[in-house]
Amino acid sequence: MDKQQTILILNGPNLNLLGNRETEIYGSQTLGKIEAECRAHSDKLGYKIEFLQSNSEGDLVDWIQEAENNISGLIINPAAYTHTSVAIMDALKQLNCPIVEVHLSNIFTREPFRHHSYVSPVAKGVICGFGSNSYVLALNAIKKLISKEGDF
Amino acid sequence: MDKQQTILILNGPNLNLLGNRETEIYGSQTLGKIEAECRAHSDKLGYKIEFLQSNSEGDLVDWIQEAENNISGLIINPAAYTHTSVAIMDALKQLNCPIVEVHLSNIFTREPFRHHSYVSPVAKGVICGFGSNSYVLALNAIKKLISKEGDF
Amino acid sequence: MDKQQTILILNGPNLNLLGNRETEIYGSQTLGKIEAECRAHSDKLGYKIEFLQSNSEGDLVDWIQEAENNISGLIINPAAYTHTSVAIMDALKQLNCPIVEVHLSNIFTREPFRHHSYVSPVAKGVICGFGSNSYVLALNAIKKLISKEGDF
Amino acid sequence: MDKQQTILILNGPNLNLLGNRETEIYGSQTLGKIEAECRAHSDKLGYKIEFLQSNSEGDLVDWIQEAENNISGLIINPAAYTHTSVAIMDALKQLNCPIVEVHLSNIFTREPFRHHSYVSPVAKGVICGFGSNSYVLALNAIKKLISKEGDF
Amino acid sequence: MDKQQTILILNGPNLNLLGNRETEIYGSQTLGKIEAECRAHSDKLGYKIEFLQSNSEGDLVDWIQEAENNISGLIINPAAYTHTSVAIMDALKQLNCPIVEVHLSNIFTREPFRHHSYVSPVAKGVICGFGSNSYVLALNAIKKLISKEGDF
Amino acid sequence: MDKQQTILILNGPNLNLLGNRETEIYGSQTLGKIEAECRAHSDKLGYKIEFLQSNSEGDLVDWIQEAENNISGLIINPAAYTHTSVAIMDALKQLNCPIVEVHLSNIFTREPFRHHSYVSPVAKGVICGFGSNSYVLALNAIKKLISKEGDF
Amino acid sequence: MDKQQTILILNGPNLNLLGNRETEIYGSQTLGKIEAECRAHSDKLGYKIEFLQSNSEGDLVDWIQEAENNISGLIINPAAYTHTSVAIMDALKQLNCPIVEVHLSNIFTREPFRHHSYVSPVAKGVICGFGSNSYVLALNAIKKLISKEGDF
Amino acid sequence: MDKQQTILILNGPNLNLLGNRETEIYGSQTLGKIEAECRAHSDKLGYKIEFLQSNSEGDLVDWIQEAENNISGLIINPAAYTHTSVAIMDALKQLNCPIVEVHLSNIFTREPFRHHSYVSPVAKGVICGFGSNSYVLALNAIKKLISKEGDF
Amino acid sequence: MDKQQTILILNGPNLNLLGNRETEIYGSQTLGKIEAECRAHSDKLGYKIEFLQSNSEGDLVDWIQEAENNISGLIINPAAYTHTSVAIMDALKQLNCPIVEVHLSNIFTREPFRHHSYVSPVAKGVICGFGSNSYVLALNAIKKLISKEGDF
Amino acid sequence: MDKQQTILILNGPNLNLLGNRETEIYGSQTLGKIEAECRAHSDKLGYKIEFLQSNSEGDLVDWIQEAENNISGLIINPAAYTHTSVAIMDALKQLNCPIVEVHLSNIFTREPFRHHSYVSPVAKGVICGFGSNSYVLALNAIKKLISKEGDF
Amino acid sequence: MDKQQTILILNGPNLNLLGNRETEIYGSQTLGKIEAECRAHSDKLGYKIEFLQSNSEGDLVDWIQEAENNISGLIINPAAYTHTSVAIMDALKQLNCPIVEVHLSNIFTREPFRHHSYVSPVAKGVICGFGSNSYVLALNAIKKLISKEGDF
Amino acid sequence: MDKQQTILILNGPNLNLLGNRETEIYGSQTLGKIEAECRAHSDKLGYKIEFLQSNSEGDLVDWIQEAENNISGLIINPAAYTHTSVAIMDALKQLNCPIVEVHLSNIFTREPFRHHSYVSPVAKGVICGFGSNSYVLALNAIKKLISKEGDF
Repeated sequence: MDKQQTILILNGPNLNLLGNRETEIYGSQTLGKIEAECRAHSDKLGYKIEFLQSNSEGDLVDWIQEAENNISGLIINPAAYTHTSVAIMDALKQLNCPIVEVHLSNIFTREPFRHHSYVSPVAKGVICGFGSNSYVLALNAIKKLISKEGDF
Repeated sequence: MDKQQTILILNGPNLNLLGNRETEIYGSQTLGKIEAECRAHSDKLGYKIEFLQSNSEGDLVDWIQEAENNISGLIINPAAYTHTSVAIMDALKQLNCPIVEVHLSNIFTREPFRHHSYVSPVAKGVICGFGSNSYVLALNAIKKLISKEGDF
Repeated sequence: MDKQQTILILNGPNLNLLGNRETEIYGSQTLGKIEAECRAHSDKLGYKIEFLQSNSEGDLVDWIQEAENNISGLIINPAAYTHTSVAIMDALKQLNCPIVEVHLSNIFTREPFRHHSYVSPVAKGVICGFGSNSYVLALNAIKKLISKEGDF
Repeated sequence: MDKQQTILILNGPNLNLLGNRETEIYGSQTLGKIEAECRAHSDKLGYKIEFLQSNSEGDLVDWIQEAENNISGLIINPAAYTHTSVAIMDALKQLNCPIVEVHLSNIFTREPFRHHSYVSPVAKGVICGFGSNSYVLALNAIKKLISKEGDF
Repeated sequence: MDKQQTILILNGPNLNLLGNRETEIYGSQTLGKIEAECRAHSDKLGYKIEFLQSNSEGDLVDWIQEAENNISGLIINPAAYTHTSVAIMDALKQLNCPIVEVHLSNIFTREPFRHHSYVSPVAKGVICGFGSNSYVLALNAIKKLISKEGDF
Repeated sequence: MDKQQTILILNGPNLNLLGNRETEIYGSQTLGKIEAECRAHSDKLGYKIEFLQSNSEGDLVDWIQEAENNISGLIINPAAYTHTSVAIMDALKQLNCPIVEVHLSNIFTREPFRHHSYVSPVAKGVICGFGSNSYVLALNAIKKLISKEGDF
Repeated sequence: MDKQQTILILNGPNLNLLGNRETEIYGSQTLGKIEAECRAHSDKLGYKIEFLQSNSEGDLVDWIQEAENNISGLIINPAAYTHTSVAIMDALKQLNCPIVEVHLSNIFTREPFRHHSYVSPVAKGVICGFGSNSYVLALNAIKKLISKEGDF
Repeated sequence: MDKQQTILILNGPNLNLLGNRETEIYGSQTLGKIEAECRAHSDKLGYKIEFLQSNSEGDLVDWIQEAENNISGLIINPAAYTHTSVAIMDALKQLNCPIVEVHLSNIFTREPFRHHSYVSPVAKGVICGFGSNSYVLALNAIKKLISKEGDF
Repeated sequence: MDKQQTILILNGPNLNLLGNRETEIYGSQTLGKIEAECRAHSDKLGYKIEFLQSNSEGDLVDWIQEAENNISGLIINPAAYTHTSVAIMDALKQLNCPIVEVHLSNIFTREPFRHHSYVSPVAKGVICGFGSNSYVLALNAIKKLISKEGDF
Repeated sequence: MDKQQTILILNGPNLNLLGNRETEIYGSQTLGKIEAECRAHSDKLGYKIEFLQSNSEGDLVDWIQEAENNISGLIINPAAYTHTSVAIMDALKQLNCPIVEVHLSNIFTREPFRHHSYVSPVAKGVICGFGSNSYVLALNAIKKLISKEGDF
Repeated sequence: MDKQQTILILNGPNLNLLGNRETEIYGSQTLGKIEAECRAHSDKLGYKIEFLQSNSEGDLVDWIQEAENNISGLIINPAAYTHTSVAIMDALKQLNCPIVEVHLSNIFTREPFRHHSYVSPVAKGVICGFGSNSYVLALNAIKKLISKEGDF
Repeated sequence: MDKQQTILILNGPNLNLLGNRETEIYGSQTLGKIEAECRAHSDKLGYKIEFLQSNSEGDLVDWIQEAENNISGLIINPAAYTHTSVAIMDALKQLNCPIVEVHLSNIFTREPFRHHSYVSPVAKGVICGFGSNSYVLALNAIKKLISKEGDF
């Protein structure tokens, strides 16, 4: 019997603090609740998820590299590193599975330096502005991309 | 008994040609098939959709204005007008319902002038890069926004 | 007996919505009330006015062209097209009568992209920031320009 | 019985030379005639005016500060300081009465460095391009702003 | 026997006014005379022409789309939309026949914003500065492109 | 009897290599064949041509200066010097005869630094993108400019 | 009895090397001596300090997060990360206590890329150019901010 | 017996208005209270202060020049002239005593044009964001610089 | 008998300090010696000179205005105001006599902001880099311009 | 007897993945093979090498600091950190031994953001585009720099 | 007896055409007359001059190199190469004698690309705008620089 | 027996002066010694070299064109033309053999305009900063590229 496919969900710096700061921008959910929501939804979709967070650019690069052969899709919320990390961009380029970039907030309503993403050019698609639901939508998107790559 | 809520789905210039040009960028689906997919999905979600396309900036502005009191959500793929229309931006600002900007392709992998959107700052969120599935995901997003606006 | 001179007053996209959105920027007057105010004031000044609004760039160009030989002055609030329409600029350049650009709000207190106007270089003068009174002042300005073009 | 309200009219550098230079840009009126025109018009409106000119940025800042509690409105033609003076901008910000920026010429038809104004963002509105009539229109605008602040 | 091939000639905003404005830039010919000149020349070349003008961006996009399967070549003078229309650019990209961009004036001797064209990157070539003769030259160019595509 | 008028055709650096490099950009014709094509066509038009090529900016300036009184028109493909030579621009400015700038390829589809030309502002018109036919069209354009300068 | 308040003092990359390089820019003090000077001064002020240094952006983010509820003020010399770290900026934004940015050297006399700080917009104030005394002044500033927040 | 050393404290335009405008940016202290606070603190430090304010760029330059041989340190809050005065920059360059630039507010949280200072490159250091305490900290900094110039 | 013609020589901010600061840039001469040198040279040329210096932009504008009808030529070393004063530029534009801009140092070897001059576009010519001799050369230039305006 | 001199070779993020991704850019060699090639070559040159790789900016800074007194030369391929790390730049500045920056690919043929290096200004020289041979050439360069520093 | 010192006067492209083109910019003098004027003036000053012109950047570089040990001063009017030639800049840098850059016209009143000079940063000074007199003034300047280098 | 392969080494403007100017940047070697060093090293490698220098852009283009079929590799130090010559870039693009760009100095430590190279995008690789050794390393690089093109 086939073993379950895994989706890696990576979270960048300061996302571990969700729920107790800038709630007008990021909503009041904690990262724990987002993880739970993702886990519940991926169960329905038939995937296993790995859900990680780090404040370190190097950790995120390491995790992307390690994931290389073991995952069917990657969801990344690079947070602050969205705008500054060529290293994460380069790590993502090597993956063969679908990559979806997510953001809790709509980054295009924030400071101009947050409008540019080093990750977007190497992702399949981008979903931003829907709070924790950005992750859920990304899981749906990944499922579609895995199951019927044909169309797009 | 309550009448069904309506989601307006607006499509900008040249989207009526989908399926017979630049299929490596936009996929092989026609706009008709996308409409059918949206209609099927919104049926499941319990919404009615109105699905319109125009090559004229003025038409799109007119439709947004007319929709003002009759819709529960708006999905817009402004296509070329994404990058040039302040008029559409201004029309969208007056709506009180959730607005989701969608793109078939990942605009961040294309020419630099396509990386800027006048619509993003007035949308709730942005979904791009998933072909016709961008619309389906947007319908899901709208549903969440309508039913439990609370979190975000 | 001489027939009355006509002033054409053109209004760009979304101005038909005045009074029910963004009232902190545009004031609470409707376009209908502005028209009435203009009509009352131009009566006093001895002019007839034609007062038009469209959301379509092409309509505005058409109206400017059609006005060419029939008007003594033109007041234009190009709204969003202020910042994006070379076509309107080119149409205005052909007129021989005085042109006054008006804005309800002070565009220099808003987003940077609203600080540039394609219309200003082809207008006689610019009046912005006084709500509906911008139009009334423009009518006064036009009268002065028609009657004693000499000084300026 | 109430004493008459005062409007302060400030004129920046080189405006004292009006009438004998660059008449194709600034018209042939002298500053003296503009003052007379303003005085006649404000008489009709029921205001007293104070009409000052200086070539010194510091003088203009001083006069704005001194005016603070004694005026009902301020009209300023900052001339060259329009484009270079943050000090005047900062002085104007403290005033509670309506401020109108005026220019004799249409600054948007001149050198690019004249298209930016440090004064516009702190003024209620801007009137330019109508020669001495820019001042008269500004007096009208001020009157409206004082008497029925309500709408805008 | 083969039916005659058609060349579509599209003219953007304000070109309908040719001959009565800015004659120092655009020459004294009317659009009617240019059409006649094109018609005479294409007769010699053995083509039928369709010659259209609109002030509306949407119309131009519509006409390009409708032409898709019925024309052997397209000549477009996008006028003001040269510099602002991504929608026309996107419409042109779908055509398989040769596209030639023409301008009456040499756009590189005019305002800087007229030096950039959204149409040039999707045209086969560009001809500008020769007045109505730009169109005639474009017809010659199209003929060469249709008959001996081989070389280039 | 009148002696034949001469058209000078100048070719900039690396054009002597045509036909054996980058054929996907410049076509497979050699400069020799282009000269022959120009010679044949100018025979038909009744002109003599002088056809020169150099890799040296100074040579091209010299030739333009020497041509001053002996030619009726000049066609120049400045190649790489298009983008870097103010000296050629200055030399061309002194000529009284019509100047046409030509390019084999459509320079607007290439690297951004090739989109700017120092030659365009001093040329009558520009023709690019038609391979060797750009020269033939330029000869036609010159003829029209010489014979009926009147219109434009 | 109240326990002593703690001030966290964070030092970014390469500050551990102070005293043995570029002494003309950074002075000859070692980080150890700066810590001692801070400790002596904060003793006088009645604060406890925690004094940390890391070359890792992630460590600095971690420490800021951990400090969240335990400190009364934060002094940060972000060194190289001043100019590149959005992650540190985002971490600092969540703190409720006063934040002071310090630099040993006057960064405005150095390379242009050192003139921009991602930290300044989220700090209460900035002190730079006074060598180790920048830290001492920052401690004084923090004390004032904690004890009489009232004025500012 | 040695006579007391003098610190010159210069205040730029509009600072004389402190306390009655924009108190959310500049705090509620008047310039008089800041002077008193400086005087009290410099007494403790053993310095005499001269405390001046002007709205005129020329006055500030004059005072810097006159101070040249009579002062041991200079604290300057150039206010609006921070961003526009090369003249003050040039005057400061000639001083041999330590110069400290201060600002009441954190200029890096304000409009972008306030992020650039012509004074910073010629100052020893910069202190901003601490209200009147910026001055007190600057006095401390000056003392350290005078007494033990050695380290930095 | 004709009275002697006068040349006005204006000196901007900080030039009164010449000789005791930054001697590696400005040389060791004092302004007094430069005045003497100018006076001696203008005596030889048969002119009277008026030699003024001010640190105030307003004074310089005043002096230019007052000079209007009394001088045959103007030499101006605007110093710091070279780069920031539109007011001086505007004042100079009204003069009918020749204007020469001088600088002691070669401003093009200094900071980039010193490479732009608001005065150059309204001067007849510019002389910089020759220390006090820049003034002497300017006197020669003025003489030539007055006596044989013919050639240039 | 003298102990062997050590060359430190540092490799930035994602270089550990060499050989299994983007082989058209980076070649098919693994980092292991590059290390072996370096080791073999440095044996010939008489040096010992230390060969390290990390995905963490902080690690690279740490290693540079630790190397300070123990190495005779440093070769660094900063990979993605080339373009984003001021911290590595600052660490390198303290080293007294020769530093050579290497890249496998020619970074000037890639995305514009890869054309700027924070490392180049603090390196002795740069070698890029030769695959693993870039390292070998750098070893040669270092040898020359150590043995005959004289010439350069 | 000492042999006469030589001043080399170099003239860039198109200056050989002076007098018969663009006389409103460059005056009506020919280069021959300028040479004669220079020769006459340098005779008075006791110098020999060498006066050369070329349209070739390489020639100008050659002449500067050859002059290296034989001249006491160099006057260069680089014409078009002013704005484009790093090669001439680099050649000039090696000379030890005084270099003066001259221009016939005031380059700061012309196109923006003519405001930047690669030569100015390596010249002692710049003289522009005085027609042929720019050369005469430069000869005077050189004499002063040779004879009493002391002051500057 | 096979005839020896030839490497062409091209040197741009002013390199013939090496050794007697700016020795702090370029070292004290003459171009003659560099040629000798190259010749000695290429002997060891089994290549013949041709070593040329010119101050003329056109010469360099000519030589590249002539070399086309006769060389196995090209080393070019374009000196000043690095930054300004599109003509050399275009000539190099046609070569099929490996091209290495070399510089004596590290161009990234010099003026900003020297950081951009038109040659780098068409070279295989770049080596800069090692004085004459840059050439020797380039010869090594070329050998590797010729003999085992395989890897890269």
